[in-house]
Amino acid sequence: MRTVSAFKWVPPFAQGLVRDLRVRWALEEAGLPYQVKLIDSAVQASADYRGLQPFGQVPVFEEDGLVLFESGAIALHIAHKCEVLLPTDAVGRAHAVTWLFAALNSVEIAIQPLAEVDLFFPNEEWAKLRRPALVEALQERLGELAARLGTREYLEDRFTVGDLMMVTVLRILRHTDVLDGFPTLKAYKERCEARPAFQRALEAQMEPFQRPRA
Amino acid sequence: MRTVSAFKWVPPFAQGLVRDLRVRWALEEAGLPYQVKLIDSAVQASADYRGLQPFGQVPVFEEDGLVLFESGAIALHIAHKCEVLLPTDAVGRAHAVTWLFAALNSVEIAIQPLAEVDLFFPNEEWAKLRRPALVEALQERLGELAARLGTREYLEDRFTVGDLMMVTVLRILRHTDVLDGFPTLKAYKERCEARPAFQRALEAQMEPFQRPRA
Repeated sequence: MRTVSAFKWVPPFAQGLVRDLRVRWALEEAGLPYQVKLIDSAVQASADYRGLQPFGQVPVFEEDGLVLFESGAIALHIAHKCEVLLPTDAVGRAHAVTWLFAALNSVEIAIQPLAEVDLFFPNEEWAKLRRPALVEALQERLGELAARLGTREYLEDRFTVGDLMMVTVLRILRHTDVLDGFPTLKAYKERCEARPAFQRALEAQMEPFQRPRA
Repeated sequence: MRTVSAFKWVPPFAQGLVRDLRVRWALEEAGLPYQVKLIDSAVQASADYRGLQPFGQVPVFEEDGLVLFESGAIALHIAHKCEVLLPTDAVGRAHAVTWLFAALNSVEIAIQPLAEVDLFFPNEEWAKLRRPALVEALQERLGELAARLGTREYLEDRFTVGDLMMVTVLRILRHTDVLDGFPTLKAYKERCEARPAFQRALEAQMEPFQRPRA
């Protein structure tokens, strides 16, 4: 049996962006069944959960006794089971893995500070002073990504786990209009989001948030 | 033949921290010979180099026609060739890969904003206002990492590519005293830095910076 931990509830700004989405999407692409362990903040802070996830985040992934954390590591683990996510040739694999890391360490690292400013500190003086340069640096990074994508459908010659991760990272910008400046990136994101596996993953994450709260 | 791109010169605050160090260290652990392509800012900005590295960063790794970027992806590629970096059993591999991602997406993402404040914007008003909360958030993350490490020598029961990456990330804090608050993490970093492969990699990165500049 496979399980993925996810939050019972998060504020609207995070709904549809929580990192378990990446793992759900990979599992849906791979056609692998899974169960969800919904957790609340008490579980998240517990010693038991910290034993599984040292940073108290989601998701934790469990599969026949194997326990993994870090959405990138879990997505890669799942990708190795499924040619939809990872080509079987060595070069294709290495390229897909490159984009997986690029999403998390070259693009998310430029997006996250802007999301923090906007979602957590919108009225702070430092945030107002800092924001323009964050947007500018991010636009430079996105321009580089758009230049590499060019007119292609995907980052490589087919969809891979690298696209999956890049799209979940680009989605963090949904509260801004930054992506409007990069129409090919926006279309790329929407093309990947249109995949039935993504839609199923997103619906599954959103479902508990729409239940009446106890 | 294997080649790694690196900078001909960088300012002192970056010397010994440039990302090609991660790849050099992995290659030294694996005992794989490599050549270095030293580049300057003109090459870095060129269309040819951007064709290899869309973000204009180092390192680019070339091996028999395979071209990779992203230090995480390259380190993982090398790790697959060498049991010193990656256990051969599936569970051990998955755990090592988890730490590789944790270093880049859970720890570096908390360290980088502080390094930016200190190294690039020390006199900006927003940076002075922002710094205390960045340090506090980072201390929380490092506390979680220290709790997980406990009294162990490495993040798992032996040295892996996950430790290699975590240590290169922790080293970004060298201009601060933040790590002094976490003696077990500091000792862990120093234990890994004492490895002869790390020492060779660091010396190799530093060597061109010490030549007289043209």
